[in-house]
Amino acid sequence: MTYCVGIKLDAGLVFLSDSRTNAGLDAISTFRKMMIYERAGERFMCLLSAGNLSISQSVREVLQVEKLDNGPPEEGREPITIWNASSMFDAARVLGSAVRRVFREDGPALKAAGVDFNCTMVFGGQIKGEAMRMFLVYSAGNFIEATRETCFFQVGESKYGKPVLDRMITPASRLNTAAKCALVSMDSTMKSNLSVGLPLDLLVYREGQFASTEQVCIDEANPYFQMIRSTWGQRLREVFLALEDPLGEAETDNPLLVASERFAPMRKITHPGERVI
Amino acid sequence: MTYCVGIKLDAGLVFLSDSRTNAGLDAISTFRKMMIYERAGERFMCLLSAGNLSISQSVREVLQVEKLDNGPPEEGREPITIWNASSMFDAARVLGSAVRRVFREDGPALKAAGVDFNCTMVFGGQIKGEAMRMFLVYSAGNFIEATRETCFFQVGESKYGKPVLDRMITPASRLNTAAKCALVSMDSTMKSNLSVGLPLDLLVYREGQFASTEQVCIDEANPYFQMIRSTWGQRLREVFLALEDPLGEAETDNPLLVASERFAPMRKITHPGERVI
Repeated sequence: MTYCVGIKLDAGLVFLSDSRTNAGLDAISTFRKMMIYERAGERFMCLLSAGNLSISQSVREVLQVEKLDNGPPEEGREPITIWNASSMFDAARVLGSAVRRVFREDGPALKAAGVDFNCTMVFGGQIKGEAMRMFLVYSAGNFIEATRETCFFQVGESKYGKPVLDRMITPASRLNTAAKCALVSMDSTMKSNLSVGLPLDLLVYREGQFASTEQVCIDEANPYFQMIRSTWGQRLREVFLALEDPLGEAETDNPLLVASERFAPMRKITHPGERVI
Repeated sequence: MTYCVGIKLDAGLVFLSDSRTNAGLDAISTFRKMMIYERAGERFMCLLSAGNLSISQSVREVLQVEKLDNGPPEEGREPITIWNASSMFDAARVLGSAVRRVFREDGPALKAAGVDFNCTMVFGGQIKGEAMRMFLVYSAGNFIEATRETCFFQVGESKYGKPVLDRMITPASRLNTAAKCALVSMDSTMKSNLSVGLPLDLLVYREGQFASTEQVCIDEANPYFQMIRSTWGQRLREVFLALEDPLGEAETDNPLLVASERFAPMRKITHPGERVI
């Protein structure tokens, strides 16, 4: 499995990926799932991938050279690549085309072997002349774009780590907050799913920078992530325990046991002395 | 979808279920997923069910009359039912048998219609003469039992609400703590999955009581659950924001950007002036 998250804020982009891959519990390896494509000062793109590793590695390789038809060459139109695309939307189309190329090449044999063509990706960045954009790209090469209403995308094992993102992240969040939240989200995921694991790759992109300057590989020895792992759990416990208890001593001071006006407990007696409720 | 959780503590049992069922997003209904089977003072059993509603309703109905062969009747052996089983293990076998009976009756037609035979259940309780026990029962009628190492079971949409249970619950937890934790876990799940919804059924069973005395149906108006929904999210935010930021001002005071000793960021230049990292 895999867990990757990309967050698009007004201030910039945050990308975080784990690096565990597995082909069964007895075949666990470490592979980086984050790729950065950039021409410093002009374009920056980051790709996070989940799914079948052979597919996502092929897509990453093809993406660097994939060309999208841009109309008649006799009119002097160059094919679109990620290196000349004038918008992230076009770059995402190139990525979709790369996915479809790999599907054409590998799809039939994978199908014959009973293997799903499974590859989902987060692709975000900024190209000079345009605002930052971020996309979720599916196995069919189609994609959706992050908006202000939904400003983060997850791929892989997304559920364990989603509640904290739902609660904390808005487009106005600081990059610091989003990076911290991504790490907390990753920590919760790693606690519950063994197939998500260290080291992590974290990248923070600041709007208008057109280069990846804040990028780090986080392993077991990283002091900040160690702090997150121990402190977050401990503080969570403190907050949790400080919440009022649901069961009071007497029924009268019990805030939970207020009867519902609409829904009464169902009671059905089937045998004398026995209750089926 | 559904979310149900059962927790087995030294002090007792906690059961919580939502009540939303859906056959597509345009067909949402409310059905109770908690059933209580008890003979006060002698046996108490609670069943939480997830999966296909027609299957789980049938299983619940069959369970009340299901008989398990107990050897030659000429030796005076009564068939085992949930009403005479001398152990929760035997009661769980009766439940498994009920599941298999429904499978024999409905399975072929469901398969022909392309519908999975999908029914997973949490079944826990106490029978006089025995300690409390709790089981997770699968669609094939087989089951596993909760232990001190793993003292809670979830069925349905389990992932969103698992991290908080993982962090908070041990067999030594108070019933109050477990009931609160189940509600927080449900709150996180409802926030992330629309197919889990109010009202909730909460039951707290105290060890050796052999009756369900603390049982409540929680709807939108319940003041305690309203408090959980607002306060937990708010406190979580406070704790989260109080955690040290990962990105310092300068690289020297940045606790996150400690380079990994084993894993360096991969850097690979493919085109002059372009970087693929």
